[in-house]
Amino acid sequence: RCLSGMQTVTLIPGDGIGPEISTAVMKIFEAAKAPIQWEERNVTAIQGPGGKWMIPPDAKESMDKNKMGLKGPLKTPIAAGHPSMNLLLRKTFDLYANVRPCMSIEGYKTPYTDVDLVTIRENTEGEYSGIEHIIVDGVVQSIKLITETASKRIAEYAFEYARNNQRTSVTAVHKANIMRMSDGLFLRKCREVAENYKDVKFREMYLDTVCLNMVQDPTQFDVLVMPNLYGDILSDLCAGLIGGLGVTPSGNIGANGVAIFESVHGTAPDIAGLDMANPTALLLSAVMMLRHMGLHAYADKIQIACFDTIKDKKVLTGDLGGKSKCSEFTGEICRRVQDME
Amino acid sequence: RCLSGMQTVTLIPGDGIGPEISTAVMKIFEAAKAPIQWEERNVTAIQGPGGKWMIPPDAKESMDKNKMGLKGPLKTPIAAGHPSMNLLLRKTFDLYANVRPCMSIEGYKTPYTDVDLVTIRENTEGEYSGIEHIIVDGVVQSIKLITETASKRIAEYAFEYARNNQRTSVTAVHKANIMRMSDGLFLRKCREVAENYKDVKFREMYLDTVCLNMVQDPTQFDVLVMPNLYGDILSDLCAGLIGGLGVTPSGNIGANGVAIFESVHGTAPDIAGLDMANPTALLLSAVMMLRHMGLHAYADKIQIACFDTIKDKKVLTGDLGGKSKCSEFTGEICRRVQDME
Ligand SMILES: CC(C)[C@H](C(=O)O)[C@@H](O)C(=O)O
Ligand SMILES: CC(C)[C@H](C(=O)O)[C@@H](O)C(=O)O
Repeated sequence: RCLSGMQTVTLIPGDGIGPEISTAVMKIFEAAKAPIQWEERNVTAIQGPGGKWMIPPDAKESMDKNKMGLKGPLKTPIAAGHPSMNLLLRKTFDLYANVRPCMSIEGYKTPYTDVDLVTIRENTEGEYSGIEHIIVDGVVQSIKLITETASKRIAEYAFEYARNNQRTSVTAVHKANIMRMSDGLFLRKCREVAENYKDVKFREMYLDTVCLNMVQDPTQFDVLVMPNLYGDILSDLCAGLIGGLGVTPSGNIGANGVAIFESVHGTAPDIAGLDMANPTALLLSAVMMLRHMGLHAYADKIQIACFDTIKDKKVLTGDLGGKSKCSEFTGEICRRVQDME
Repeated sequence: RCLSGMQTVTLIPGDGIGPEISTAVMKIFEAAKAPIQWEERNVTAIQGPGGKWMIPPDAKESMDKNKMGLKGPLKTPIAAGHPSMNLLLRKTFDLYANVRPCMSIEGYKTPYTDVDLVTIRENTEGEYSGIEHIIVDGVVQSIKLITETASKRIAEYAFEYARNNQRTSVTAVHKANIMRMSDGLFLRKCREVAENYKDVKFREMYLDTVCLNMVQDPTQFDVLVMPNLYGDILSDLCAGLIGGLGVTPSGNIGANGVAIFESVHGTAPDIAGLDMANPTALLLSAVMMLRHMGLHAYADKIQIACFDTIKDKKVLTGDLGGKSKCSEFTGEICRRVQDME
């Protein structure tokens, strides 16, 4: 039943602590009266015709229809030849941009303050091409694939993102001094796209230099755009600066309005079902989703309630340094959201 | 004239601030009565038969003879097709292991304390193969090359290093979940070699996880071993944790006893010749060299004098937060070295 003004989002609760933290997010959305209804789908890879791994048809259909997804952690399959579910989802829906805002959270102490940056990672090619060969016994090559099309697309996404989110600079991260042709192509596309965004400052920096500067003073960075593997590395590094994957949201953006927002931490099987998990990363990913859908007022409300709860330090889950249960932390955020009415 | 008991080391002062900081190191070695005499050589790439870039024959001969080198920063050539001098040196002398100890320096404040780790980077292959192709217009591939021989060699180096330097663990850093064949081969070799070093703990970790954990708590790491590009990234990240390239030493180790120790910071042309440069990185690289040569007493003496000078905070160069000249900082270290007699 589609309530008027409601938008439907595919919810993939995931494994381990996934269902608990998904319930937390749903409760908080309800408290905030966010105009979202959820369509729950399980995702475990199945083998289609010819042994090809694919996500279950009902999950695929739901995403095709709703175009918007929220996803908890999925366990990493250990069967040989089984693809990573995350990679399979990115591929199935051509989610070409992985976006991770990293913002210092007041009251959650880390060695850094005032971090406020966004990593934008090309999500479809590069070192993740999956093309590898044995040349002769003991000699292996992996192919890093960089295309003009994908490089241009991610560069444009980064500059659009910067412009639409009042960001002042975009830094292209590369090793074009070493991979002159592949990273060279990526960098050239970034430079070309930069020409069309004179309102946004463009910088380029070697990946190693970015890492060095990042741990010395992350406040010098704003939006960063980079090929796949560099994004994998830098996004985790930046998450570390603000407290880890438990508090870092993430979004995978595709063409034609398709997007999946997800927490990127693990399934934490050791505490699954014990009402101990921290739902913050999934909640902040859901907040990113609301903004992506243009529902800024709801996003603001929930984000403030979450950050205030953390700042207040009275009701925190164990990983945040408290003793409260997931449901208590969730209840506190709901209370604050309702108080804002 | 070879003084008795003296060993000769090839000194490549380098460009920019290179000569000043080399002079500083020579003065301090003299004060410490280190049994080293220097053979100075300039290194700028020249083109040999068939246009092949090579280092000047007199520098090559000196290194071939002495087997031991100390090198300041070299300016990055901007001519098209001109190789990086650092890469050319690594290649010319098959310097397969890049070793960078990162230790927190008392008195030099960074967000971290008690960092004490060593990155060991495979220095000859991987993403630095230099093999790239245009497949069709707008589609480029770079080849990452991993061999059994080089992987085994670097893994053995890492475990030997750990054993000989009273280190307790070696962590292999990889993305074998993505590059299953290439990083898979690297990882397999590390595992095999680990079998022969039961006294050293072996761990394996994804590169992204290492980055995340590193910025959250670097004290959990000891020796890390990894393919070329990952080493490029992680070694700079770790240098950032302890204060940057101005205080981080580095060594490039080859077969048959050949090694070049170097500071990995830039040439700083803006302050070249002004007696403002900080010689610490080159000095600590020279200390690494002394240890590599088995001259531990001299190494200890110089290292203590350098660290005490920094801890004391009275005579520091500008980048270390002081107002002293390079020569004054050098003089202070010499004084402390002489006081130890
Ligand atoms: C799970 C894994 C395949 C993935 C990656 O390497 O991209 C993860 O690290 C990520 O960042 O989403
Ligand atoms: C100068 C450059 C080619 C080099 C590299 O990328 O390896 C540098 O960053 C290093 O770490 O020595």
